[in-house]
Amino acid sequence: MVELDPRESMRLLGSVPLGRIVFTARALPAVRPVRHLVAGAHVIVATDRGVAIAPAPRAETGTVVAYQADAIDPACNLGWSVTVVGVAHQVGGPAADVFRRELHYWADGGNDQIISISPGIVTGFRLLPAVTAGARGQDQR
Amino acid sequence: MVELDPRESMRLLGSVPLGRIVFTARALPAVRPVRHLVAGAHVIVATDRGVAIAPAPRAETGTVVAYQADAIDPACNLGWSVTVVGVAHQVGGPAADVFRRELHYWADGGNDQIISISPGIVTGFRLLPAVTAGARGQDQR
Repeated sequence: MVELDPRESMRLLGSVPLGRIVFTARALPAVRPVRHLVAGAHVIVATDRGVAIAPAPRAETGTVVAYQADAIDPACNLGWSVTVVGVAHQVGGPAADVFRRELHYWADGGNDQIISISPGIVTGFRLLPAVTAGARGQDQR
Repeated sequence: MVELDPRESMRLLGSVPLGRIVFTARALPAVRPVRHLVAGAHVIVATDRGVAIAPAPRAETGTVVAYQADAIDPACNLGWSVTVVGVAHQVGGPAADVFRRELHYWADGGNDQIISISPGIVTGFRLLPAVTAGARGQDQR
């Protein structure tokens, strides 16, 4: 397993359409799969309106959430995972409409909210093929 | 989107090898992909020892975590997601060794901890094909 730097982590995050948003609901940990896209330095996700995650677009303070995506092959334990911890706000107005179209979320027409996450801490790791001590020695020759 | 009952949710969870454990680390939301299996009423996962998630095997109180797995096809927005919220403890002794072998975790030999989650709240949903009003009408004839 090797750690990934934030730049490579954000690149990988932008290469897949799905991840999971982690938040607190009624004082319990909560997690939901959502669609996302990376727009500049922000991660934009769509969630259904039944889930209270982030405050209104013009709220002064956001909500701290985590966002995670991965691509791991369970058959061979290879792949990567990226986690972003940051402040989330709802997106309103025309920008929300643009993101809503781009995100192809599964909620019924218009029945969703668009959330922008401003990444504070970006971490990631990549799972590499397991090598035996002997094979590792060969690689280094 | 249709809600799944807890029994069907646990069955689906047991049908896949990977999910994400959600916990709190340094007062921030944290999430990591891990391997899991369903053993009786418990969800058993392996994580690397660098992550402090659950208290020692014989601790009187556990830690509340969420665990989530899904199988969603991003191309057609079909699939399912299951989330379990429950109390987590580390597993020790011979049981940990048995689970460690069964889980095929990616951490280097022995460098992992086994955690048992006792599900309190089990929820899930399935994404169904989008149907237009016209198509829905045809189905009902």
